Amino acid sequence: MSPDRPVRPELALRPAIHTLPTSRIREISRLGVGLPGVIPLWFGEGDESTPKFITDAAARALAEGRTFYTPNRGIPELRAALAVYMSGLYGRPIGEDRVTVTASGMSAIMLAMQCLMDHTGNIVHVTPLWPNFLGDVTIMGAEPRAVPLGERGGGWVLDLERVFAACDDNTRAVVVNSPSNPTGWMMTNEEQSELLAFCRRRGIWIIADEVYARIVYDRHHAPSFLEVAEPEDLLFVVNSFSKSWSMTGWRLGWLTTPAALGPTLEMMNEYNVAGAATFAQHAGVVAVREGESYVTHLVERYHRARDLVHQRLSGMRRVRMSAPDAAFYAFFAVEGMRDSIAFAREVLFEGKVGLAPGAAFGSTGEGYMRLCFASSNELLSQAMDRIEPLLS
Amino acid sequence: MSPDRPVRPELALRPAIHTLPTSRIREISRLGVGLPGVIPLWFGEGDESTPKFITDAAARALAEGRTFYTPNRGIPELRAALAVYMSGLYGRPIGEDRVTVTASGMSAIMLAMQCLMDHTGNIVHVTPLWPNFLGDVTIMGAEPRAVPLGERGGGWVLDLERVFAACDDNTRAVVVNSPSNPTGWMMTNEEQSELLAFCRRRGIWIIADEVYARIVYDRHHAPSFLEVAEPEDLLFVVNSFSKSWSMTGWRLGWLTTPAALGPTLEMMNEYNVAGAATFAQHAGVVAVREGESYVTHLVERYHRARDLVHQRLSGMRRVRMSAPDAAFYAFFAVEGMRDSIAFAREVLFEGKVGLAPGAAFGSTGEGYMRLCFASSNELLSQAMDRIEPLLS
Repeated sequence: MSPDRPVRPELALRPAIHTLPTSRIREISRLGVGLPGVIPLWFGEGDESTPKFITDAAARALAEGRTFYTPNRGIPELRAALAVYMSGLYGRPIGEDRVTVTASGMSAIMLAMQCLMDHTGNIVHVTPLWPNFLGDVTIMGAEPRAVPLGERGGGWVLDLERVFAACDDNTRAVVVNSPSNPTGWMMTNEEQSELLAFCRRRGIWIIADEVYARIVYDRHHAPSFLEVAEPEDLLFVVNSFSKSWSMTGWRLGWLTTPAALGPTLEMMNEYNVAGAATFAQHAGVVAVREGESYVTHLVERYHRARDLVHQRLSGMRRVRMSAPDAAFYAFFAVEGMRDSIAFAREVLFEGKVGLAPGAAFGSTGEGYMRLCFASSNELLSQAMDRIEPLLS
Repeated sequence: MSPDRPVRPELALRPAIHTLPTSRIREISRLGVGLPGVIPLWFGEGDESTPKFITDAAARALAEGRTFYTPNRGIPELRAALAVYMSGLYGRPIGEDRVTVTASGMSAIMLAMQCLMDHTGNIVHVTPLWPNFLGDVTIMGAEPRAVPLGERGGGWVLDLERVFAACDDNTRAVVVNSPSNPTGWMMTNEEQSELLAFCRRRGIWIIADEVYARIVYDRHHAPSFLEVAEPEDLLFVVNSFSKSWSMTGWRLGWLTTPAALGPTLEMMNEYNVAGAATFAQHAGVVAVREGESYVTHLVERYHRARDLVHQRLSGMRRVRMSAPDAAFYAFFAVEGMRDSIAFAREVLFEGKVGLAPGAAFGSTGEGYMRLCFASSNELLSQAMDRIEPLLS
């Protein structure tokens, strides 16, 4: 079965589903199954399991019988805790009526897409971009329009004029993932204000994926649309417990939106998953309220990992990269490489290191490779030793 | 804000989302917030928290650090356990390549809808039907076509000819929820075969919601499409851990489909929620493998509850009902009642009992009320005492 055509035509699915993008990352990682000794740096996941104070909170909730349905927008304690957390982080009051708990950041994105997208609309998104947004755009039958970041002075930059030019009367939303997976690029508050002003004039929504908001190395937190937007702005801010508190397997995220959208999101959650698991929500309260020192520990650790990886990769002849100030990826250009998928295979089979091919993040990503450095310095050093011959 | 119009038009959402059906059940239950002493029988949820052998398994998985992403179709142990469980239950080999774990039965339905439904298609569904299917049809922009069950000889019956007549070239699927929420109606294996034969000829999918498969009072399990279908038939069977093992708050379900659909469902899970929580999946393995005596206990308890409720309600002058052989609802007609929502309010404010209005289940449901009897006989007796004056 070809990876581009996962379904037999006679299965009579929607045409859109026949063309659903498959994961180029999983395509590579599948090849690694059964290969002994591979160092897997392809997925966007830290190597630490969830800290004990959070798993203990979930175990307590389970023992207390917190296994029933919750309100569709989440338990009040968690919505309140998130409102307090964001109000503190961004120095602006954010009411809990603007917060909806979701069954993952991914689910939050799907809810936003379902609210806005159908076959009559298009969505403008900044690339390179992690691939799942496009999966959702495809499922909802809308048209995606990519606006590539540029590289300038060793960093990534966005030309907002290109975003504005890509929008037309059928544009329902602009998608910005900042800090960016895979590039680590961060949009400034000034750029956010400028985009917001444009979208206000045009009645276009912004979907801001800010799940790496806390994984930053040169400041306390990444610039957020929540720092510059009014409560009524047409804005979905997507967040997740996965990265800040090492909770990938929990499927716990949240949306911040205009309060007026609350009743709609209540129903959208109901019709999609109903919400996040009950005891996971109770553990989420503890993560948000008591997790600051854990976030600090995590970021310090990733910071050291970034420095190691940046230093080593920069010393390899074929590599061009800047040190990312956020997220936990090295997204580096490889001189002379034209097919990142083929090169990922080469790195896997010859170097026994699992990397994600840049092509997985849109055509802008071709020529690059992504390495997730949310791992131990020991393992990362070993990975560097292995790939050095292929990049020198 | 009117409940029928949860969103301000200036929010610029999709027109379909502006007309998203709101929950008539929650409309009533919201009125009950702050009313002391109400007996809540409006939601479809048992009164027992998850049994200890299952919550212990989740706590163990948490302590073991099972907090990372899983494969998108679920952990292999759970898919294997479900394949063994269904093969045993239905006396037919069902391979684990046909099983996809989902983040709830609800999510399973949404994945199926997304595979099949867009603005060019319609879906034929048997009513009365719990309302969430229609939410998903609306979100995907498709047209719903209701085929009502009839009442004959004190029970519910389906005229398959009406289902066939409702299908046309744009029909993508027939939805059957059997055992039915709210009526308890069960489709026979013969009817399932007949529908399957029709759908085979026409290339139409069947989406069978079988989450009440084990909540049956006159047999071991409800008739399942899996007993009569071939592995390649265009069939989504939706199931859930919520009802059989009292795991509503866990968001854990599964889909059984043709194996060829696996790669597609892998991506659909990825683009919706990624999957169910990791430790919840590990607990699911234990539920399926060691939960039979719990299922037996639960069904015996609900059986007694059904007998009590049926006996009491049948004795009330205005009530007409048959004893349901499956699911955990009394769905009864009330003589002289023309507005079930108004009557639900009356029962709430005067009787202090929370019931779901029949109108919540489609226009066929008007004239009826739904009472969830997955509760203690003590509480149910008290509820009967309270509503008796309103129904006599």
